[in-house]
Amino acid sequence: MTQTQDTARSRTFSWSDPAVNAAELGRRGGLETLRAMISGELPPPPVMRLLDIGRMTVDEGHVTVEMTPQEFHYNPLGSVHGGILSTLLDTAAGCAVHSTLPAGVGYTSLDLNVKFLRPATVGSGLLVCVGTVLQRGRRTALAEARVTDAGARLIAHAMSTCLVFPVNPAP
Amino acid sequence: MTQTQDTARSRTFSWSDPAVNAAELGRRGGLETLRAMISGELPPPPVMRLLDIGRMTVDEGHVTVEMTPQEFHYNPLGSVHGGILSTLLDTAAGCAVHSTLPAGVGYTSLDLNVKFLRPATVGSGLLVCVGTVLQRGRRTALAEARVTDAGARLIAHAMSTCLVFPVNPAP
Amino acid sequence: MTQTQDTARSRTFSWSDPAVNAAELGRRGGLETLRAMISGELPPPPVMRLLDIGRMTVDEGHVTVEMTPQEFHYNPLGSVHGGILSTLLDTAAGCAVHSTLPAGVGYTSLDLNVKFLRPATVGSGLLVCVGTVLQRGRRTALAEARVTDAGARLIAHAMSTCLVFPVNPAP
Amino acid sequence: MTQTQDTARSRTFSWSDPAVNAAELGRRGGLETLRAMISGELPPPPVMRLLDIGRMTVDEGHVTVEMTPQEFHYNPLGSVHGGILSTLLDTAAGCAVHSTLPAGVGYTSLDLNVKFLRPATVGSGLLVCVGTVLQRGRRTALAEARVTDAGARLIAHAMSTCLVFPVNPAP
Repeated sequence: MTQTQDTARSRTFSWSDPAVNAAELGRRGGLETLRAMISGELPPPPVMRLLDIGRMTVDEGHVTVEMTPQEFHYNPLGSVHGGILSTLLDTAAGCAVHSTLPAGVGYTSLDLNVKFLRPATVGSGLLVCVGTVLQRGRRTALAEARVTDAGARLIAHAMSTCLVFPVNPAP
Repeated sequence: MTQTQDTARSRTFSWSDPAVNAAELGRRGGLETLRAMISGELPPPPVMRLLDIGRMTVDEGHVTVEMTPQEFHYNPLGSVHGGILSTLLDTAAGCAVHSTLPAGVGYTSLDLNVKFLRPATVGSGLLVCVGTVLQRGRRTALAEARVTDAGARLIAHAMSTCLVFPVNPAP
Repeated sequence: MTQTQDTARSRTFSWSDPAVNAAELGRRGGLETLRAMISGELPPPPVMRLLDIGRMTVDEGHVTVEMTPQEFHYNPLGSVHGGILSTLLDTAAGCAVHSTLPAGVGYTSLDLNVKFLRPATVGSGLLVCVGTVLQRGRRTALAEARVTDAGARLIAHAMSTCLVFPVNPAP
Repeated sequence: MTQTQDTARSRTFSWSDPAVNAAELGRRGGLETLRAMISGELPPPPVMRLLDIGRMTVDEGHVTVEMTPQEFHYNPLGSVHGGILSTLLDTAAGCAVHSTLPAGVGYTSLDLNVKFLRPATVGSGLLVCVGTVLQRGRRTALAEARVTDAGARLIAHAMSTCLVFPVNPAP
């Protein structure tokens, strides 16, 4: 591989200390926490900088995240890796659940069931991933997420169950 | 955020034209293709450079990939994002299926069912993900994948069904 | 166990030769086949008699099946067994896919991903299970199904991928 | 349909009051409860009589259930309905988790992810379904289950996550 090729296909990204964010968990309600990330008051999680995930919008029980497919997302088959789509879906589903939690309640994803329906490429245009809470129980919550391309075609779908539980925020 | 902090948490990575790899699909058998990637004859897929996925080893029906958790893999909860673990699992499962395919046969992942069992952090040490084909039919193949940490504890588990089909390699 | 108790909890059901139904596959379109089962022109599949599944309604891409929980559906925990709910969900999802297929095209379920949200008991009233096709591709179709109780509460949810393929009807 | 045909394809089964069984939950450990069902001290759950599920064997973390495919298990495609296979898988997975629980701890299935690999028919011979616990945490447990036919071929596979929680046995 020549130097020129390497230079042409290289990217630098930066992120902030994730401990800042994690320390806030349970201190505020989920919706307030997510809105603080969106406004820039709290730093975005590093993985969003890694993947270059773009705009996020949040309402109670609903989260939208956007990502433009780029070559560095590609698998060996010449399309966006299923794990990158899974990251979008897990983010939207998990944050949708988070948005329903009051202060003092945490969550963790138990699973992620992804269906891949159509490959995404740099030609797909902006990918929009919408997460929605279908059920919110005392101990678990169920969320659905869908990725569509710029032509509103369904690219991938996921279901995720989260465990919800009381947390003691760090002092 | 200060300039100093940004500099301390920044990373540059590079990758190669994914079209080189995709053009090879179907020309050679899967095991031969994967071994050509491992030896460096074919470029690794961009997503492996993005996530800094390390060593891969391959046998027919079995694939191992390794990754050291890093801060840029983190979600807002202070651990490796579930989507990053999903990427490892999808890679190991999909490549395990690929390793069983002769020249002229392609595959695509239909789904990925992930169970998250334990958070992974920079303290987890090297993550090892092993993918294994459980069944290889005429039209589909079923693979399992597991991620364990340096203490051999199960971090995540996945099942994936792939569609297999004849391909005409690009001329 | 006394004779009296046994008599009090006993049920007899009957069914028809399933080969009659299977021989029709691929001869007619899916919607026409399902409507012939509903009208009684074709016999219902034996499993529907086994579980005492009630009314079915069909439109292209949408199927509804109904079942009243009965004691013989119970697991050791004192509620309808998850496998019985899975049977309803698999039926609604699979038949929804079937309803989109023209004559000469068959299908088979590759998977069923069920989420159990709330126990169903004889106190739940009529369970209604609605199956809907989310995507219909050349080689696969994705369907969703939901079971709700008489109070319209979500009891269980499922996703199912079906393989679709050309069939040669029996001569 | 003639009277004669109906008579030829008819079955009567009986079961016991499921409340007897449910009242025992949490009183004894899971392994002891399951062994009491197998020995006949406690009644089998109604669904096992409904489906004519045969022999069950139990060890801590491992459960085997057997079933001979019969015509009344059939779907319209002329094979055992996927929901019947799901019932076997859910039973083996759930009981495997139950077998690890001490007195005073209950469980419920959160999900069931089934992969259908090969149709089962009356020609498949005895189906053997083995459930195994892969991970047993404080709040959840993960189990795997597999159905094989008389020729040891894999018919279906499932993963199931159960929630485990303290119970107060009925007084």
